Amino acid sequence: MGLNTRIIVHIMGLLLLCNGSFMLVAAFVSGLYKDGVTLDISLAAIVTMLFGVMAMFYTRGHRKEVKRKEGYIVVTFGWIIMSLSGTLPYLFSGAIPSITDAFFETISGYTTTGASILNDIEALPKGILFWRSLTHWIGGMGIIVLAIAILPLLGIGGMQLFAAEAPGPAGDKLHPRITDTAKRLWLIYFGYTVAETVLLKLAGMSLFDAMNHALATLSTGGFSTKNASLAYWNHQPIIQYITIVFMFLAGSNFVLSYFAFTGKIQRILKDEEFKYYTIFIVLFSVAAFLVVNYKVEVPVSDFHPMVWGAAESAFRHALFQVVAIVTTTGFVTADFTSWTSFLTVFFFGLMFLGGSAGSTAGGIKVMRHILIIKNGILEFKRTLHTNAVIPVRYNEKTVTEHIVYNIIAFFVLYMLLFIIGSLVLGFMGLDFVSAIGGAASSLGNVGPALGDLNPVSNYASLPAAGKWWCGFLMLLGRLELFTVLILLTPYFWKKT
Amino acid sequence: MGLNTRIIVHIMGLLLLCNGSFMLVAAFVSGLYKDGVTLDISLAAIVTMLFGVMAMFYTRGHRKEVKRKEGYIVVTFGWIIMSLSGTLPYLFSGAIPSITDAFFETISGYTTTGASILNDIEALPKGILFWRSLTHWIGGMGIIVLAIAILPLLGIGGMQLFAAEAPGPAGDKLHPRITDTAKRLWLIYFGYTVAETVLLKLAGMSLFDAMNHALATLSTGGFSTKNASLAYWNHQPIIQYITIVFMFLAGSNFVLSYFAFTGKIQRILKDEEFKYYTIFIVLFSVAAFLVVNYKVEVPVSDFHPMVWGAAESAFRHALFQVVAIVTTTGFVTADFTSWTSFLTVFFFGLMFLGGSAGSTAGGIKVMRHILIIKNGILEFKRTLHTNAVIPVRYNEKTVTEHIVYNIIAFFVLYMLLFIIGSLVLGFMGLDFVSAIGGAASSLGNVGPALGDLNPVSNYASLPAAGKWWCGFLMLLGRLELFTVLILLTPYFWKKT
Repeated sequence: MGLNTRIIVHIMGLLLLCNGSFMLVAAFVSGLYKDGVTLDISLAAIVTMLFGVMAMFYTRGHRKEVKRKEGYIVVTFGWIIMSLSGTLPYLFSGAIPSITDAFFETISGYTTTGASILNDIEALPKGILFWRSLTHWIGGMGIIVLAIAILPLLGIGGMQLFAAEAPGPAGDKLHPRITDTAKRLWLIYFGYTVAETVLLKLAGMSLFDAMNHALATLSTGGFSTKNASLAYWNHQPIIQYITIVFMFLAGSNFVLSYFAFTGKIQRILKDEEFKYYTIFIVLFSVAAFLVVNYKVEVPVSDFHPMVWGAAESAFRHALFQVVAIVTTTGFVTADFTSWTSFLTVFFFGLMFLGGSAGSTAGGIKVMRHILIIKNGILEFKRTLHTNAVIPVRYNEKTVTEHIVYNIIAFFVLYMLLFIIGSLVLGFMGLDFVSAIGGAASSLGNVGPALGDLNPVSNYASLPAAGKWWCGFLMLLGRLELFTVLILLTPYFWKKT
Repeated sequence: MGLNTRIIVHIMGLLLLCNGSFMLVAAFVSGLYKDGVTLDISLAAIVTMLFGVMAMFYTRGHRKEVKRKEGYIVVTFGWIIMSLSGTLPYLFSGAIPSITDAFFETISGYTTTGASILNDIEALPKGILFWRSLTHWIGGMGIIVLAIAILPLLGIGGMQLFAAEAPGPAGDKLHPRITDTAKRLWLIYFGYTVAETVLLKLAGMSLFDAMNHALATLSTGGFSTKNASLAYWNHQPIIQYITIVFMFLAGSNFVLSYFAFTGKIQRILKDEEFKYYTIFIVLFSVAAFLVVNYKVEVPVSDFHPMVWGAAESAFRHALFQVVAIVTTTGFVTADFTSWTSFLTVFFFGLMFLGGSAGSTAGGIKVMRHILIIKNGILEFKRTLHTNAVIPVRYNEKTVTEHIVYNIIAFFVLYMLLFIIGSLVLGFMGLDFVSAIGGAASSLGNVGPALGDLNPVSNYASLPAAGKWWCGFLMLLGRLELFTVLILLTPYFWKKT
């Protein structure tokens, strides 16, 4: 039995229909602000929906169930088709005339990376800015379904482990889990977005900026409506602290938020990943704070006026940057590459950490690091006692060898892709630091990188081929590598 | 039963006695050239031998057999005690007055790294230069015993795999294998050294330079007697080609050389690691050649006079640098960091490859990469067929899961140590590129690195703490990580 192409096309059609509906929301915002591109965005919406409806119409009467193999195709092509159709508002409105640039900006949106090619963000029509933030938020919704419902069934990179913790009925078919579990978590996602919007508005942001930043925070995206990103609000520390809190929430497992709202606090305290996620952020922030406070020769206050004193400023900037990088959001309040060379290496290293599994964050993820380190420590024990079987334990349960294997293979593949990614960027003429920074940041869906791609710069200077390449790395990283790469293996296309 | 400290001390004594004897050889060379430090080196030899004899005398009548746990201690402390006593000729002669610098130079010697803190190598007395090269060669002898006889028994990083291929009787005690197998391979090591000395002399080097370079080549060390390293002989390409051939041999499995000399050519052709080692070097050299030839804007000929034409020069420099980095020798004919940014990333990546298992080369090693990549590809197959058991095959045999596990754990640990290594160097004030280059190069026992530690510079500018840290990384890398790190785990010191 071959692949059920009808259902694949049908789902693509459904995605296009949804995407078009979201464009209508952006068109509505555009109309509210009378920014002059309302018709352009509406046209993009209609074209997208038209293609969607056509695809669904021609594939009606398809078989209902989605098999594993079809799952990989749906996920990968789903993200690609969203990114392709998502360029239309930019192209039709002329906000980003180049297809390469528009595709880069869109895939950076849907993969919740937040790398931008825009030199002057503030010059864009409000409707377009809103669409840009919305691509993040839609991407984040996709990631939640993916993490909770799809990847565990596809057996990718240890996501099974954490899925066992997910609420809702566990079945072997994709359908029931998506509807039940995802709906609950989407509700939390939506609720957090509203809450952050309200808080940011109360703290002094305009409603428009508040909405956009909330959309970009909860998805751990990182697009800002300001050229200076969050550094624009250096005079209003409270805005930055609110953002820190929501970045932290967005980078933690949404299932834990669900537990919190249903009163199961015990489950949160027992969660190993959440424990280490918190410990890592605290430790790294303290380390960064100490260095910024005592070593940064250009006083932080020169660049960012002190509001509550220099130490508070150092603390806030250190904490903000750590949370922004670890959660792979990539908002910026200061250029960490201009601090000390230690901090450059430090933040570069943090790009390989990643947030929690089951969050909207990208990267390797804390859970995988915990298992790799635990297994690494046990390997010493195994070396001394060659005949003993010493399994890894996680959240008080034994982890099967198969899963540990899979997680380590993920890590190795990630590193390999980072090296290949850097080499390709180097070949395109980027200098050493920009090449490895750009590869690490794209693969980890972070956004800001090093060198020419530093946090206060952007990706506009990349050659066209480099933009496509970084887009590909973002997609790879976002879909946990295997989902995309498995389509490139001969095993996949062999009939069984 | 506790550790048999008597035999550990006894072996340390034996090592000191051997090291002292080697110093006498350096003293003899010093005397031949009447360089004025003959007495200093002789005194160093006598002091070293005295300590050795004392240690052996007080521990006579020890139990004969060495257990696994004692093996780890002997190896780690053996390398440290050699490095400590090896500083004496430098210190007594005043050639390197600082203890930090002398220790760095010595451990860089015994770990066959070849990183140097000397600004003017050519100003040193000949006896000291010879001692410096000799530390490489002694280190190389140690590595051969380690790889063939000790590490496989200690169960470290998949060395079991390749040890199955080693000639000689296989037993469970360390002793018989060391004497039988190691002697044969030492003979080949010695033979190659003599052969290279003769060829380099015939090609136009002085006998002294030829000897020193042969000692530093076969051990994949990289200390040169010239400030410009092998670039000194840019007018004599034949010398560089001879060096390339012997670096290639030194970076390949010595067991294969043994097969070659006993006529078992079939065994060499069937060896997977040798096949990929050769393929990698050819492919990477061609890639580097194409870039150097067509992209390097400063013509190679400006810096290195053309002898046989520009293309030959580009080819030779590309090939030389690739072989020097892959085999972790670290000789230099040109500064690859001054070529193109792609080549900087490229050579940085090569530092993570490493030579063959069973050679004197450091780094991760080709064998491990083959197994990791094979396993990675199979992981896709396993993801699609969750219930099938799909083992990795290497050299036509099935590799046990335990060994694959161990190899992958090695890789992950290596990457982790690279990151920690970079962070510490960054913290000591090195800029980003120097920090990650220095960590990768030290851990891989390469020598030349990037940034301030580029191939035509040296490690003199490192802060003192940085020199000790790099020395520690060299030791970690040289002893395949686990050997050293296992001593730092609580499991090790727990009584069984």
